[in-house]
Amino acid sequence: MSGSTFGKNFSITTWGESHGKALGCVVDGCPAGLSLTEEMLQSYMNRRKPGQSQYTTSRAETDQIEILSGVYEGVTTGTPISLMVNNHNQHSKDYESLREVYRPGHADYTYATKYHHRDHRGGGRSSGRETIGRVAGGAIACLILKELGIQLTTFSKAIGSVSVPDKAYRLEEILKNPLYMPNLDYAQRAKEFIETVMNQQDSCGGVIECRVTGLPVGLGEPVFHKLDSVIAKGVMSIGAVKSVEFGAGHRASQMLGSECNDSFVNPSEAVEIADSQDKITSKISKSSNHSGGVLGGLSDGSPLVLRATIKPTPSIGSEQNTVNAKNQQVSLTITGRHDPIIVPRAVVVVESMVAISLVDLLFQNMNAKLSHLKKIYNPQ
Amino acid sequence: MSGSTFGKNFSITTWGESHGKALGCVVDGCPAGLSLTEEMLQSYMNRRKPGQSQYTTSRAETDQIEILSGVYEGVTTGTPISLMVNNHNQHSKDYESLREVYRPGHADYTYATKYHHRDHRGGGRSSGRETIGRVAGGAIACLILKELGIQLTTFSKAIGSVSVPDKAYRLEEILKNPLYMPNLDYAQRAKEFIETVMNQQDSCGGVIECRVTGLPVGLGEPVFHKLDSVIAKGVMSIGAVKSVEFGAGHRASQMLGSECNDSFVNPSEAVEIADSQDKITSKISKSSNHSGGVLGGLSDGSPLVLRATIKPTPSIGSEQNTVNAKNQQVSLTITGRHDPIIVPRAVVVVESMVAISLVDLLFQNMNAKLSHLKKIYNPQ
Amino acid sequence: MSGSTFGKNFSITTWGESHGKALGCVVDGCPAGLSLTEEMLQSYMNRRKPGQSQYTTSRAETDQIEILSGVYEGVTTGTPISLMVNNHNQHSKDYESLREVYRPGHADYTYATKYHHRDHRGGGRSSGRETIGRVAGGAIACLILKELGIQLTTFSKAIGSVSVPDKAYRLEEILKNPLYMPNLDYAQRAKEFIETVMNQQDSCGGVIECRVTGLPVGLGEPVFHKLDSVIAKGVMSIGAVKSVEFGAGHRASQMLGSECNDSFVNPSEAVEIADSQDKITSKISKSSNHSGGVLGGLSDGSPLVLRATIKPTPSIGSEQNTVNAKNQQVSLTITGRHDPIIVPRAVVVVESMVAISLVDLLFQNMNAKLSHLKKIYNPQ
Amino acid sequence: MSGSTFGKNFSITTWGESHGKALGCVVDGCPAGLSLTEEMLQSYMNRRKPGQSQYTTSRAETDQIEILSGVYEGVTTGTPISLMVNNHNQHSKDYESLREVYRPGHADYTYATKYHHRDHRGGGRSSGRETIGRVAGGAIACLILKELGIQLTTFSKAIGSVSVPDKAYRLEEILKNPLYMPNLDYAQRAKEFIETVMNQQDSCGGVIECRVTGLPVGLGEPVFHKLDSVIAKGVMSIGAVKSVEFGAGHRASQMLGSECNDSFVNPSEAVEIADSQDKITSKISKSSNHSGGVLGGLSDGSPLVLRATIKPTPSIGSEQNTVNAKNQQVSLTITGRHDPIIVPRAVVVVESMVAISLVDLLFQNMNAKLSHLKKIYNPQ
Repeated sequence: MSGSTFGKNFSITTWGESHGKALGCVVDGCPAGLSLTEEMLQSYMNRRKPGQSQYTTSRAETDQIEILSGVYEGVTTGTPISLMVNNHNQHSKDYESLREVYRPGHADYTYATKYHHRDHRGGGRSSGRETIGRVAGGAIACLILKELGIQLTTFSKAIGSVSVPDKAYRLEEILKNPLYMPNLDYAQRAKEFIETVMNQQDSCGGVIECRVTGLPVGLGEPVFHKLDSVIAKGVMSIGAVKSVEFGAGHRASQMLGSECNDSFVNPSEAVEIADSQDKITSKISKSSNHSGGVLGGLSDGSPLVLRATIKPTPSIGSEQNTVNAKNQQVSLTITGRHDPIIVPRAVVVVESMVAISLVDLLFQNMNAKLSHLKKIYNPQ
Repeated sequence: MSGSTFGKNFSITTWGESHGKALGCVVDGCPAGLSLTEEMLQSYMNRRKPGQSQYTTSRAETDQIEILSGVYEGVTTGTPISLMVNNHNQHSKDYESLREVYRPGHADYTYATKYHHRDHRGGGRSSGRETIGRVAGGAIACLILKELGIQLTTFSKAIGSVSVPDKAYRLEEILKNPLYMPNLDYAQRAKEFIETVMNQQDSCGGVIECRVTGLPVGLGEPVFHKLDSVIAKGVMSIGAVKSVEFGAGHRASQMLGSECNDSFVNPSEAVEIADSQDKITSKISKSSNHSGGVLGGLSDGSPLVLRATIKPTPSIGSEQNTVNAKNQQVSLTITGRHDPIIVPRAVVVVESMVAISLVDLLFQNMNAKLSHLKKIYNPQ
Repeated sequence: MSGSTFGKNFSITTWGESHGKALGCVVDGCPAGLSLTEEMLQSYMNRRKPGQSQYTTSRAETDQIEILSGVYEGVTTGTPISLMVNNHNQHSKDYESLREVYRPGHADYTYATKYHHRDHRGGGRSSGRETIGRVAGGAIACLILKELGIQLTTFSKAIGSVSVPDKAYRLEEILKNPLYMPNLDYAQRAKEFIETVMNQQDSCGGVIECRVTGLPVGLGEPVFHKLDSVIAKGVMSIGAVKSVEFGAGHRASQMLGSECNDSFVNPSEAVEIADSQDKITSKISKSSNHSGGVLGGLSDGSPLVLRATIKPTPSIGSEQNTVNAKNQQVSLTITGRHDPIIVPRAVVVVESMVAISLVDLLFQNMNAKLSHLKKIYNPQ
Repeated sequence: MSGSTFGKNFSITTWGESHGKALGCVVDGCPAGLSLTEEMLQSYMNRRKPGQSQYTTSRAETDQIEILSGVYEGVTTGTPISLMVNNHNQHSKDYESLREVYRPGHADYTYATKYHHRDHRGGGRSSGRETIGRVAGGAIACLILKELGIQLTTFSKAIGSVSVPDKAYRLEEILKNPLYMPNLDYAQRAKEFIETVMNQQDSCGGVIECRVTGLPVGLGEPVFHKLDSVIAKGVMSIGAVKSVEFGAGHRASQMLGSECNDSFVNPSEAVEIADSQDKITSKISKSSNHSGGVLGGLSDGSPLVLRATIKPTPSIGSEQNTVNAKNQQVSLTITGRHDPIIVPRAVVVVESMVAISLVDLLFQNMNAKLSHLKKIYNPQ
């Protein structure tokens, strides 16, 4: 467990390199009794696979998911679920020239120094293809959450400086545009922005938002495994993420207490929650949601709202200065197939990490009260 | 381990409530051979203790740290170090009226729902006093890092809208003002801002920055226990933190790849790192540090730079609307002793969580290469 | 977490040395809602404390347990419970001569080599006093199990060669003799044996048996966290234990399959279980219990039966040959206060480790089936 | 991580069912720089594969191991190593009649109760085929140990009542007989015993011993992750193991302290260690090895010696009484292909669990002393 396992009671262990034989994931702790087929998983895989639009890499991979264990006659058995995707379309020769050159913004130099011996082809383990295992595991987490009435909605809030304000959210439009933005007009503007960037042989980044409704109140473990801290770890572990925030987020630093505090309200008197159309799951509600649905590290009944900043893709077509393994200054022009922006494909990756975190915390929370234990073990 | 332990090989397990008998921490995994006295720890405790200035709560606590185990004749023995601080100045009666009222912005409602039975006095376990254990453990982590030539510098980057730009950093001034800002002029303006807020019976927040120099290259474990993801968890687990970012952070969403990528440079040709006076620890350097010192989740030899947003203190003197345990709408005016801002006292808490994360990852990294193992076990 | 924490969701973290200020335990994951007082814990502490009879060390310690956190108004709050016992009757000077001498059968040499710097007084952390934290935590585990209808019975099955056969068990006599044997006649013979050994300045060992009834069927996690493997770890971690076995145990190596297999029987036809008076908790029963209540690593509804071998106390009064820190051959006569046998005091320690393991596995098992999750989170 | 992961820093996560598509293992934490090929692993796989002799099941499986990740150009890269064995020769129809019948001595009933939905074919996850993942991971652990000068020797000490006394050990004969006994004469007698048992449609068990030389002194983490407790967990987690013991083991209960204590001796005066031809790795030695190489949970420089009892194979050809899923009493005759004894095939499984435990503890021990850390991070 040197970093390849995420989760304590519900966990994923991922493996695989960009140009290796295959990539995969072992999901441990999935409860028995969940309906599960490869088709159900594939719909999640398709949201991150390459070649969805002109804004993604042209590497031709079907990313077909295979279930190798843990499911019998279409239902989970409680034993570990091994999932695998074979690699088909590696162009390893494209990378031969990069064997000893450290690409700026990539992990080439840090891996080479940590391990000395590394698989440089396509970034090896540090490639975005590593997230295949995350999405495979995340898909199972989402299916469990669905059974418990918990719903995740994840989308591209911003691409470059094109940011959709909360009031313009039309969540039903997310799946209707290849950028997964919650508003088709903004999506159109973002497309134009990306095309400009592509013409400059450059790349861009953005912001992904995830909203969760239906959570029970009190989810999260004080003091170190808080709802927000567990999710922060999971989301920050995604390659290109540079910041994670909840609710008011970094804007909270400039608010006053009287402004940032969300008043509790009796739902019969509840005003509509300002920044959301989401349903309310708690008996007690709040007049605003600057907390982002988490108070003291525990879910507070309002929608959980978090955002992650994705940096621009480090692989760009224009010439860059860098250093090689012999510590010589060299000039580098990256050829080959690359995403000008990874935000749209990363949407389902963020959703996966949030979903896995939530299932894990739901498991943990089962033991918070003696009454829970008695309900399972000593019903009278 | 339902959330009270942080760290895998070097860990802290904290305990205690705001108005209980004591609070404490068990540090497990501290190597044998480290000089350690209560005095060495006390200097860290003093940076978070109440009553340092007019900008902190007037609760009178000396927060005297006591070492109960794991140290013999002034040196650690490798066994668990138990640390304790007794509570002296609880005013539990102040809280009697809050037994059944849920304070906005606090964890009262979420704890009550999760556990049913709770210690409401001073917030119980969700109080800021919980961080005593973090600082006690963090102090030991800092002492270990010092032995390895690793240096942490942590400060209040911003208080409300008073933000010190990187170019104005005068790190030697941090300990010369009670707000722990890296510039005395900005500190003066921040004081004036806080006083205005206090006069309004309100509170404010800010931004804490932590910079680490001297790290070996390659620290962090791909793919889930990355340097940034482990730290993000630790820092986000601090009560009032709403966002965590590294390097360019949330600004990265609006940068282009050509702008965000840091070029690698041979140090003999290295230009001065733009945003820092910090020393360089790597043979290979970078022309800028938008990465914040972490590439692919591993330290890259540039200074590690991270920031956390602290929300305004939720306890404010002005009247607020809320709900009680009977789900009735009530009006609330919080009396008693509260910090108008917790940013200055939280500086050492952020430093502690970063330090603990770093020691833990340094331990893990010992096994990255077979050559490391041979150096210890099979020297020839 | 370098070895001082046991348990995954319900855990104890112990600390303290034989001649330090105090010893203690932090229990994390105790559910909220459990009645808990110091008196309830003290009755467990008293079963291991010194000075109970002439067969235990004369070190005068009351071993008074103190609850420092996690309990409010007599009920647990779900937050970590810190427990402490102060040391009062250290005779540290007795050990001055042992600072640089390695006692045979003790951990002096191995600690000195591992850590270089050690607290040699009374064995430091490797002392039997270390088990105080185990019993404090185990007491809480036992109280949780009681709430769920699970009962542990632990006793000295054998002392030296005086072994009580299963058919002679009179469990109600266990607490009526200071050796905690389940038969007063055998206890008398064991006393005589111990007295002979004491007269020879020697020591002796024995066998502890633990029986658990009321467990739900299916407890344990395949394949590495099996019911028997988790308990084996916990029990083997007690200082003087040299073997752990379940059911037929080491005798199974000489049985045939037809003999060792326990036939399943419909309870209406069930013959009485041969080796036990324990109640049956499963709808389906077995005609014998060579499995010791565990099949495939999961509880099978029959009583869980395990035994641990305790080696003779290594501290003996007669002269021994050994080596000192300078690698010189020396002769050693251990003076001071020592138990001629630790089996009776270790009974409650074994019970504690079993109880903690069971609570932890009960927590884990809550998530085995989707139906369990729905019962808590989505009742309809 | 509900039980399918073993190890903390060096870990294996195993998956797969007897009649599923494949079985496998993800090894996380293997250091970079180790030479590794499928051939090197296959020699370990062959020691447990079926069809080695007439004493093993006739299921025809080549158990060909495949490396899917973590190795580049024949050397490990420090990233997770995914290993897989495809199933070829399932006869799933043989098991159709067992879909609702609980075989005595097997996990059918306990899995059915825990999970409700299970894969009954060939025992599913509770089959002995589950150990494929353990051996694949164990092989890598053994290769790491070899690089550090640590050697494991594992064999069948006893089959039924045919037990090889220590003085008759001829370790070079282990690989020369299909029962992996350390003496060809005893092996012949054991073969005759097994044949008698087979003629009776019955099965038998035995004892496996593992000896380890070359360990550094001080390996193991007090107090819960002791060398012996970690290994006890690993070995007890193997399906058919009913007891685990170290050194004098269960015989220690009848020894006196003066007899059980091993005197320390200066090696220049050291008498030959009574029960072993193994080399001595410590400067200080012992006149005997009743400790089995572990004192206070830490390795003591003498050979580590442990034994596990293996119960007779529960699948036997003769008729048995049992119960079905409708709780009806039925008669059962198991047909199909089964091992009359699993001891010989389990030898390499025990070795694997010991090896994995040792590597994990070697990793942990790297941080025991500040001097170790300085040697890696701050050499001067």
